[in-house]
Formats: sequence, C-alpha cells, structure tokens
Amino acid sequence: MSPKRKPIRTIGLFGKYGSKDVGNVIERICAFVRKRDLRALLEDATAEFMEKKCADSRPLASIGQDIDLAIVVGGDGTMLHVARSLARFDVPLIGVNLGHLGFLTDIPTERMYEELTRILDGDFETEERILLEAEVVRDGKVLHAANAFNDVVINKSALARMIAIETLLNGDYLTTYKSDGLIVCTPTGSTGYFLSAGGPVIYPDLALISLAPICPHTLSQRPIILNDASVITLVLKTPEEDVRLTMDGQVGERLHAGDVVEVRKSAAALQLITSPFRTYFEVLREKFRWGER
Amino acid sequence: MSPKRKPIRTIGLFGKYGSKDVGNVIERICAFVRKRDLRALLEDATAEFMEKKCADSRPLASIGQDIDLAIVVGGDGTMLHVARSLARFDVPLIGVNLGHLGFLTDIPTERMYEELTRILDGDFETEERILLEAEVVRDGKVLHAANAFNDVVINKSALARMIAIETLLNGDYLTTYKSDGLIVCTPTGSTGYFLSAGGPVIYPDLALISLAPICPHTLSQRPIILNDASVITLVLKTPEEDVRLTMDGQVGERLHAGDVVEVRKSAAALQLITSPFRTYFEVLREKFRWGER
Amino acid sequence: MSPKRKPIRTIGLFGKYGSKDVGNVIERICAFVRKRDLRALLEDATAEFMEKKCADSRPLASIGQDIDLAIVVGGDGTMLHVARSLARFDVPLIGVNLGHLGFLTDIPTERMYEELTRILDGDFETEERILLEAEVVRDGKVLHAANAFNDVVINKSALARMIAIETLLNGDYLTTYKSDGLIVCTPTGSTGYFLSAGGPVIYPDLALISLAPICPHTLSQRPIILNDASVITLVLKTPEEDVRLTMDGQVGERLHAGDVVEVRKSAAALQLITSPFRTYFEVLREKFRWGER
Amino acid sequence: MSPKRKPIRTIGLFGKYGSKDVGNVIERICAFVRKRDLRALLEDATAEFMEKKCADSRPLASIGQDIDLAIVVGGDGTMLHVARSLARFDVPLIGVNLGHLGFLTDIPTERMYEELTRILDGDFETEERILLEAEVVRDGKVLHAANAFNDVVINKSALARMIAIETLLNGDYLTTYKSDGLIVCTPTGSTGYFLSAGGPVIYPDLALISLAPICPHTLSQRPIILNDASVITLVLKTPEEDVRLTMDGQVGERLHAGDVVEVRKSAAALQLITSPFRTYFEVLREKFRWGER
Repeated sequence: MSPKRKPIRTIGLFGKYGSKDVGNVIERICAFVRKRDLRALLEDATAEFMEKKCADSRPLASIGQDIDLAIVVGGDGTMLHVARSLARFDVPLIGVNLGHLGFLTDIPTERMYEELTRILDGDFETEERILLEAEVVRDGKVLHAANAFNDVVINKSALARMIAIETLLNGDYLTTYKSDGLIVCTPTGSTGYFLSAGGPVIYPDLALISLAPICPHTLSQRPIILNDASVITLVLKTPEEDVRLTMDGQVGERLHAGDVVEVRKSAAALQLITSPFRTYFEVLREKFRWGER
Repeated sequence: MSPKRKPIRTIGLFGKYGSKDVGNVIERICAFVRKRDLRALLEDATAEFMEKKCADSRPLASIGQDIDLAIVVGGDGTMLHVARSLARFDVPLIGVNLGHLGFLTDIPTERMYEELTRILDGDFETEERILLEAEVVRDGKVLHAANAFNDVVINKSALARMIAIETLLNGDYLTTYKSDGLIVCTPTGSTGYFLSAGGPVIYPDLALISLAPICPHTLSQRPIILNDASVITLVLKTPEEDVRLTMDGQVGERLHAGDVVEVRKSAAALQLITSPFRTYFEVLREKFRWGER
Repeated sequence: MSPKRKPIRTIGLFGKYGSKDVGNVIERICAFVRKRDLRALLEDATAEFMEKKCADSRPLASIGQDIDLAIVVGGDGTMLHVARSLARFDVPLIGVNLGHLGFLTDIPTERMYEELTRILDGDFETEERILLEAEVVRDGKVLHAANAFNDVVINKSALARMIAIETLLNGDYLTTYKSDGLIVCTPTGSTGYFLSAGGPVIYPDLALISLAPICPHTLSQRPIILNDASVITLVLKTPEEDVRLTMDGQVGERLHAGDVVEVRKSAAALQLITSPFRTYFEVLREKFRWGER
Repeated sequence: MSPKRKPIRTIGLFGKYGSKDVGNVIERICAFVRKRDLRALLEDATAEFMEKKCADSRPLASIGQDIDLAIVVGGDGTMLHVARSLARFDVPLIGVNLGHLGFLTDIPTERMYEELTRILDGDFETEERILLEAEVVRDGKVLHAANAFNDVVINKSALARMIAIETLLNGDYLTTYKSDGLIVCTPTGSTGYFLSAGGPVIYPDLALISLAPICPHTLSQRPIILNDASVITLVLKTPEEDVRLTMDGQVGERLHAGDVVEVRKSAAALQLITSPFRTYFEVLREKFRWGER
C-alpha cells in the first residue's frame, strides 16, 4: 500500500481465451465500470473471442501504459500470462475466478462487485510479488531472455537420461545437480511444481529465490532457500540429451551442453491486490486439503 | 541354488559396446575359459567391436539356447540389456565391472579369476530377480509388449503439463495419479529412478511390484508396495500431451490418451550369481554413501 | 482360506474398555449368536464393564483355546491388543467399528449381521498378517520379550539428544542410524508411525519387515524393505539418554546403552477376516484422503 | 558491516566446559591478545576449568557489557549457549573449532591467529542472525520466556501418543498439527532438527521463521516458510501426555493441555563474524556430504 498510488481511471480487462463464461463476466465488469464513470479497455486477444466488444482494445504488450488497474478473469495460468506482460508497468492486478479458486485468482464472481467497489473506493492493499528473469547464454551470447512469476525450470525429456547441472551462487560453486532437472522458483511458485518436487510452502510476499532438484539421483539433496539478491548460474553439463528450459511452464527453449542459464530477480514486480476475505492459508487448505488427515 | 543345476560347458560373453577395455577383459576371460577346457561364445555385437575375435559368435536373441552361463563385462545398463534377452533361457548371469561398482555388476576385474574359478567349480548360489512385462493396448489391440528388470515408466515430456494416470489394481480402482509420471518397479529397480522419486530401498531378491508417482501434484501420494501377483492397469487420461513409456530407461513408446498399459510379473526371471564377498548393503553404502552423514 | 478350517462353534467377544456403546453392540451380537445355536464367550475385562453379562467370560490370556472366532468391537488399538494375545491360538478375527473406520476394524455396525451371517455360513476368507517378536538382551540375558502387529519402535525422549543405533541384518552390519529413533514394522503397521516417518504404504498381507529411521540426522537415509526371514539386531550406542522401546505403541521399556534388541518374525500370525465389500485402498482413501488433491 | 562499529579493546573468551584442549587454545589466544595490547576477559565457568587463569573473569550473564568481541572455542552447541546470553549486548562473535567444523564455529585452530589478526585490524564483516523468543502462557499468565538461535521445539515423550497443536499465524488459524511435535526455527537452525524433519536448507542470514511438523500423522503436511514479522501461536490441545518445550535443544519445560506457546522474532540478534575463506555451502558440503552421490 502506498500513499502515492495513482487514482484508478482506466481499467484493463483480460480473460482466459476461448471461454464463453469469461466473456459474460467481462461484459458485466464493463457495465459496472461504466456506471462508475470509469473507462474500460480490453486486451486484444480477449476482445477477439467476445461476442460483442464492450470496450476498445489494445495489444497485450502495450496495454499496460494505458491502464491503472488490471482485472483478470480466469485461472492462475491466465494471471501469470498477463502478469508477465504487465510487470514493467507497475499496474496492480486482481484475479476473478470462475469456480476454481486460484492462489492468484481468489475472488469468486459472486463477490466480484463487492470487491471492485471496495477497490475503486481506494480501500485496498497490494502485495508485491517478485519475478525472476532468466537469460540463456550460448558461446558468450545472450540467446534468449524472459521473465517468470512462478518458476524457471530446466527439465530433461521423457527419453533422456539423468542430466547434470553445475550450479553457482553469486559466482561461487554451489553443487552439481544430477537429476531429471532443476526448479528455480519465486515464493509465488512454491505451491506449483516446486511443491511436487518436495519443496516447502513459502509465504508468497517474501523476497526469496529457491532451488529444488527434480528427482535427484543423489540421496543427500534438499531444496534450498536463498535471498533475492542471489544470482544463480546454471551450466548444463550433459551432452546430447533433449533438455528444455521452461518459464512458468509456458515457454520451451531447447538447451545444449555448455549452455549457461543465469537467473536473478527481475527489476519489475507484480502488484497483486489480494482479497481481505480470505487468507493465503485458507486458499492452501481449500486447494490442497493441506493439513487434513 | 538348485541341486539340478545344469553343468557349465559353454559360457556366453557379453560386453558394453565400443569400449576397448571391455574387449581386453573379454579376451582374458576367453583364454581363462579355454584353459578350463570349456567353450566360449561371443554375442554378435560384442564380437564386432573386438580387435580379434577370441571365439565364435551368436546373435543376442538366440545365444541363450547355447550357453550355460553368461558373463557380462560393463555396467548395470549393459547387464539389464543382456538380461532382458536371456531371461527366457534361464541362464545364470554374472557381472564384471570395469572400475565402477554396480548393483548387478559387483565383481571387479582384479577378482575376476578367483570368482570364475569358484563358479566353474560349482561353488555358487543364484538369486532370482523378478522381471516385469508391460503391454500397451490401444483400441483393444496389443500394440507393444516388452520386459523390464528395473522399471516400467510413464513420463511426460519437458514441455507437457501434468498428466493423469488412472490406476487399477487387479481390476479395482486404486487412484488417479496427477503427476509428471509413474514408476512401476521391481526390487532390482528400487535403487534407480524409484529412489529418485522418493521410494524406499527394497531388498532385491524379494518378489514385489512397487509404484511411485513422479512429482505428484497432490500432497498425499506415497509410494506403495504390492505383491508380485498384482496386475497394474494404467490408463492415460490426458489428451494431447507428449507422453512416453520407457522400459529400463531404454525403450521409448509414445502413448496417446486412452492408451492402457498393463504391467505384471513376467513368467521369466533373472538368475543372478552374486558375489559372496560383498553384501547388497555394502554396495549400497559404497554407491550412495547411504547412511553417512 | 483353508479347506481344513475348524467349524465355528464358540465365538469370543472383545470390546474397547469403558465404552457403553461397545457394551450394547456386544449384547446384540450375543443374541445373534445364540439364535444361531452357537456359544458366545466374553473376555473377562470386556464382561466387567457391561451392564449385564450376556455370556460366560474367560481371561484374555487363555480364552483363545476355547473359541473358534473372535469378534472385536472398537478401533484398531483394541484389535491390536486382542490380536497379540490370540496370535498363538490361530483363531480368525473380525473387527467391528463404531463409526470410525479402521484398517483392521472395517465392518460398520450397520453391516454387522450381514457379515456375521456370511462368516457363520463359512463364506469367508482370511488374510494372514505377520507379527514381530522382539527381545531385549542386556549383559547377555533376555530381559524382556514381546510381540507387535504394527511396529517395534526405539525412540528417544523429548529431552534426549540424537541417539545412535547400530543395526545388523542377519548378523551383517547394515548401518548406524543417527536419529530420534527407529521403526521396525510389519506391513500392517505401514499405515501407522512408519508412514509418518516417510515410509511407503505396504499392502498388508505381504510377509515383509521394514525399517525407517525417525528424523535421521543424515541426509542419505531411506526406509528399507526386507524379507520376513530377516533378523534385525539393534544395538543402542548412546550413553545415558532416556530411550524407550515400544511395541504397537502400547508397552514402554527403558533401554540402556549397550542393550541389544533383536527383532524377527514371530512363529504366530494373525488370521484376519476382511470385508469383501471394501478393498484395502478404499479404506486408505477414506482414512487418509490418499491421492486426493 | 557498519562504519560505526566500536573499536575492539576488550575481548571475551568462552570455552566448551571441561575440555583440556579448549583450555590450551584459550591460553594461546590470551597471550596473542596481550601482545596486541588489548585486554582479555574470561567467562566465569570457562575460567574455572582452566589450569591457570590467563585473565580476569566475569559471569556469563553480564560479561557482555564489558567486551567488544567474543571468541568462542568449541562446537556449535557452546556457541549457541554463549550467543543466547550475549544477544542483548550486540557484541560480535567468532567461533573457533577444535577439529570438528561447525556452521557457527568455522575457524580451525590452525587458522586462528591469521583470522584474529585480520579481525583486530578491523578487516571483517558481520552477518546478522535472527533469534526467536518464546513465551509459555498458562491460564493467562506468562510462565516462562526464553530465546533460541536454532529452534523452539514442542515434542512428545517416547511413550506419549500423537499430540495435536493448534497453530495460529498472526492470530489467524493456520492448521492443527497432529504429529510427534513441531519445530519453529530460524535460518541458522535450518541445518539442525528442521532438516531431520524434512525441511529445506535456508541460507542463514535471511530473516525468516519456518515451521515443520515432526512425523506428521497426515500425509499433506509440508514445512512452511514465513516472514520474520510472523507471530506464531501454538496451543497444545492434547490432554495428559508428556509434552516438552525445548529451546536450542537445551532447556526443557513441561507443557500442559491448554498451554499457549507464543513465538516471535527477538528484538536482539546475533552479530556473527564469518570466515571469508569458506562459504556456507562449503561447510554444508563438508558436514553433510550434501549433493554427493
């Protein structure tokens, strides 16, 4: 929460592609926004699948410069997709789910008007969520750079054998993971793939970078939790296997032996407006039956 | 150990492909065998990479009918490869390693003559190791059938999302694994991929079939240990993802949604001659630093 | 299932102590048994807390010689208690629960008459469950010997530091556990403390002995699964700490440095009559939400 | 590292009790300190077991007000003991080990003079380590309050059954742990009991509070990582079992049903001078063979 927060005048609307229900919810939000004498802007791809466009539209890559609030209707996957593009614009986001509660999309449609009223009245706080950036360096040249809100993952294909990833922390040798792969994640991502790989639950507003090997071939590996100034350098040591780099599970870059992936905190961050009616651990209990017998 | 064991007259020799050291060791074994007035037979592919063939050769698929003992020189991977082909011939196997101790190849070259002398004198016991067989059924037809000594693994590719595998035990619903994949393994395979996925160490001469999900997306999954009469039916429920079936990590069949993989104990089994000088847990301690701080 | 099974003439009734509901259920079973012209016998302690005794009673230690079937009303704890005493008499047991489904007490009272009818008609099968026996040896003398259906546990007190347990398998050195303690368990016990310590689920009719350290101070320890002929020798190496041996969580013997605990399969076994209406994994799913998200 | 750091004039010396080797090392440090025209002060209990006192002594509780640097000779246990008493005085600490490398005592005696020279020349940096404080509240009254550098642990005795600990985070319900106990730890403590209970390695200079249940009786529990402003309220729900509260494994308070333990970050912190010659992960690799096969 900041006293210098920009007043909300223009609201960007983003939906999960191809869902008719999402279209209906977005139309209802459009109407609600207009009644409050505010402006709505649709993201281009969202506008495309709506039966009738309820507002002008802008491309995902640039809409961030025109809006003061982003409302995302869909699941956590949609939210991650939108958030990666908006991160550099410092626009707060809110997530409305359509029945399946998400960690990032924690407002059900039934509570949507009530929450929006509150937010448009300025009665809200934001949680800052860190974002990772990863660069792939091959033969000294940066091949590829991208952001991730959940995780940067190096993973072997189903047919490949174990891979070896030499890992440095701020330039010092850390360890060589011999495993199916490695997850570098934000606290937001701790309830995703990291948890499947045996990682702990990390409260999402912390500024931490965590590592967990995927199916390590050594008995002594454990996830590790590092501060957010950590620079993680990953060197793929395994020749000729099919190995991929994915960011939030959505982008897949093929890695070669000798490739270096450098992961650090991004200068940008996500400003997430969270529901005051539900704590993080309530979502955790509901989604994972966490702690239940 | 059986009183009705066949006398050893002909000895099959198998080596890791392409290694010159292996060739030298095999030549030395050839000479040793001839001095004992016994016959040596090379496996075709092994013979091919040797500088001079020290004996006649036969194809891997049929050599089993002509030999009374198989000596494999190389690592556990080579041993698994040979063992799958010999399983139906009931020939005992022995594994000689070239410096890297294996669970199946536990005799170092320095001890090779001593061990062979003992075995050729009939002073040995065999351990029976079970073998799995898996059939892939698509649209009611068996597409593919193969054996595994270590494990039958269903695994998603690096880019695929979580897969769902509906699992039946002897026809009764067991659970639906939502994970990166699933391992069905023999006790021999318990120190392989199964261990990486969080499974226990299973003493190798037991007759058990075990299951472990790979990176489960649920918190409540645990490996399970079943009897060897269990028939495991796995139905791939996930549409349009790149999913593979591998057997001992060496064969890769692409699976489609709706494919059924049926896994059961094979009628064949491996007769392994183990070293009396080293217990299973000594190998485990040496290879995994098991139990060390 | 045996063709030579004794006909059921006399039925022993055992209840959780001090519960009035248990008393009512036992009275109803008494009446049901008499209607079938069979004889009921109460266990002494069960008879004591009943308002009116519906049958003669016998001591727990000897009632086994007079009965052909044991019906236990209560939870798994009561069942374990009764089963330890009956094991040497080879009497089949059945467990009726009072609302809380148990792994060993899987018949709800509503289904009780239906199940008993079926059993008294001879239409049932038994599952054999192994039992462990443990001896404490101090200065060469056997101090204490007892049986366990679930587990033999060595555990330090809350204030003690780590303990070291040198472990032998059939006389060969296995490892030295440095931990809070060690669990040696039967498959029946695998869903108890063993599961809490990170062990797998083991199908209960298997004949296996399993080990799991409790909070090991080494990263490389894993549970291990051994055959039922294994003799496990545990030597407490830690001086002057408060360390206890418990059997099924119900008996607590103080151990001293140098004490030897020898664990092996008991000659006796439990004959358990299981419900044909519910598989083991249905119970597992219901009790542990096993496999659910 | 702070530009306003006090100049080092008086140096406190602390040793592991009862060790003759420790006495010799402290004498050598005394001589070294005097050669530099600085003053040495012994802690009372340390002085007591030395053959000849090389300096004046002061009680542990108050020595902190007279010294500018503390040198602890011994293991991590001694260091924790001294650090708890010095925390409120903001005196930097350094740990010299006698052969067994510790996470907090990472300077070997061979390197001792070199390190001290550097430190006395002002060429050093300190790492701030957080400290927890825990209060036991019974019937609304604070019974007991103490500090911990590693962990606050609630643990059942060897004979007790499972305990239930209702847990609140900043006053909101978090979960009810049904387990053998619960660990609340600092990052410094993450390589201790927390690791044995399945927790991750947490880089020690982070300001985090972490929770891990000990042998949870539910399958879905995982360690959780929280920010250092978290107030953790633990309510013991289990009647009549033998349950203890320990702080750094060194103090044992018996807890009753209904007792409330409140844990938060202490206002004090440890200023640790770490060796520039060894990274944290080098110590981790050496002590735990971390990451090795």
